[in-house]
Amino acid sequence: MTYNELSNQIFQKQSYLCVGLDTDPRKLPHHLLSEPDPVFAFNRAIIDATANLAVAYKPNIAFYEAQGPRGWESLQKTLDYIPADCFTIADAKRGDIGNTSGLYARAFFDPTAAGLNFDSITVAPYMGHDSVMPFLDYAGKWVILLALTSNPGSADFQRLATGDKEELFEAVIKRAHTWAGPDRLMFVVGATQADELSRIRALAPDSFLLVPGVGAQGGSLADVSRRGLTAAGGLLVNASRSILYASNGTDFADRAHDEAKALQAEMAEYLAVGNRQ
Amino acid sequence: MTYNELSNQIFQKQSYLCVGLDTDPRKLPHHLLSEPDPVFAFNRAIIDATANLAVAYKPNIAFYEAQGPRGWESLQKTLDYIPADCFTIADAKRGDIGNTSGLYARAFFDPTAAGLNFDSITVAPYMGHDSVMPFLDYAGKWVILLALTSNPGSADFQRLATGDKEELFEAVIKRAHTWAGPDRLMFVVGATQADELSRIRALAPDSFLLVPGVGAQGGSLADVSRRGLTAAGGLLVNASRSILYASNGTDFADRAHDEAKALQAEMAEYLAVGNRQ
Repeated sequence: MTYNELSNQIFQKQSYLCVGLDTDPRKLPHHLLSEPDPVFAFNRAIIDATANLAVAYKPNIAFYEAQGPRGWESLQKTLDYIPADCFTIADAKRGDIGNTSGLYARAFFDPTAAGLNFDSITVAPYMGHDSVMPFLDYAGKWVILLALTSNPGSADFQRLATGDKEELFEAVIKRAHTWAGPDRLMFVVGATQADELSRIRALAPDSFLLVPGVGAQGGSLADVSRRGLTAAGGLLVNASRSILYASNGTDFADRAHDEAKALQAEMAEYLAVGNRQ
Repeated sequence: MTYNELSNQIFQKQSYLCVGLDTDPRKLPHHLLSEPDPVFAFNRAIIDATANLAVAYKPNIAFYEAQGPRGWESLQKTLDYIPADCFTIADAKRGDIGNTSGLYARAFFDPTAAGLNFDSITVAPYMGHDSVMPFLDYAGKWVILLALTSNPGSADFQRLATGDKEELFEAVIKRAHTWAGPDRLMFVVGATQADELSRIRALAPDSFLLVPGVGAQGGSLADVSRRGLTAAGGLLVNASRSILYASNGTDFADRAHDEAKALQAEMAEYLAVGNRQ
């Protein structure tokens, strides 16, 4: 999916919602446990309930990897089920030396390898440019680079001062601009870091930002939207637990729809304000 | 495996060799392709040929992940085949917010989850302490934290100056010491970074260092050993391609043995020198 296609989806659906498919087999509604693949049955129902409200889906790979080969199969089926007009993100936070990053790229981008054909992958920047570039060798695929994450540990290294009043996450964003443009590269910025979002937006005026941490982690959608929205949209705001586990009864998909609908309606307001500016 | 057990293995086998099981299905000897699981058949032969010469085995997870569920099964069988007196490393370079790192820990450390029971995992430090601690919640398991890697991109961020003459990789090592001791935490230091090894050894005098980059990547075993060996051993030097692909004929395992034997013999000399000091 191209930059313009993603932007068009946002204005068409009046939404920059990304649904995080962080599906924990231990939290599934009881009535799904008799399904042949309960995780996929759950994801399919969540996708059916939210596909007209979300522009992106983001399975966190850890949840599938923790199930072994079975989890990998649930992931394949889930990815195949996501409608083509939705952007797909492998939240894998990979990164290794060049030839090995190339294999991770194959795993998530080349359907003839592991059966997966994601639009994008999250990548950790610690190992530098040659750990990132192999993902960009896949035409049309995106890298979403960790910049300033939503967890308390983000203060340990990401906020370290490096050089002239520049913190590490700023150095990452600046350096990454020399690797690829905003048509191939996004950044992860936690919603709990809204105070820094204006600085990040100044450094990356046209980049899409993937923003986790709204909802269960306490970030504010209003703050993130005010500081992060651009003329092209420029945001993908992720919600996982608040949607997935809104109910653990037989009505779980309806409640997931309601949660997603509330977020989408709020996003439509912010998009309208942005358009008037 | 405990610190002392690993140290004892090193002096018993007169080796600090780690064999990197970076098994690329496209590079397998032709005669193995008719096996039901060619990757496992290859790994089994490599393990048989090197188990008395190596103290550790390190499958790089990317190579298995790029094969989808089938790769995961090859990995399980390989791990189960590694003798109990060898230390096992999941070279996965994972790291995510706390609850998600907990799932990666389950995937690699809890055999009832994904069927894997590694002794250790490599972790990227970018997300900070709460991305690392969940791995340490598993009693007896190890974290091997990326510090200064062997690839050119290591200069992009790891070598950035942070604060008073301290580079980022040094800040990582210092901070990590507050998370766990050398009985649970190791560091990755590329063999191509031998010049910095003395500084790292000063910062982490008792820690084991996992050193990739000898052989195909050009690092020197002599330099690494002179600067890195400690009274307890303190090094795991990894070789992958030079051993795995020493031959691609029917003699591949014999040639792998020869390559491993040459490294082990050299290591025995360096251990003897260390013991005389």
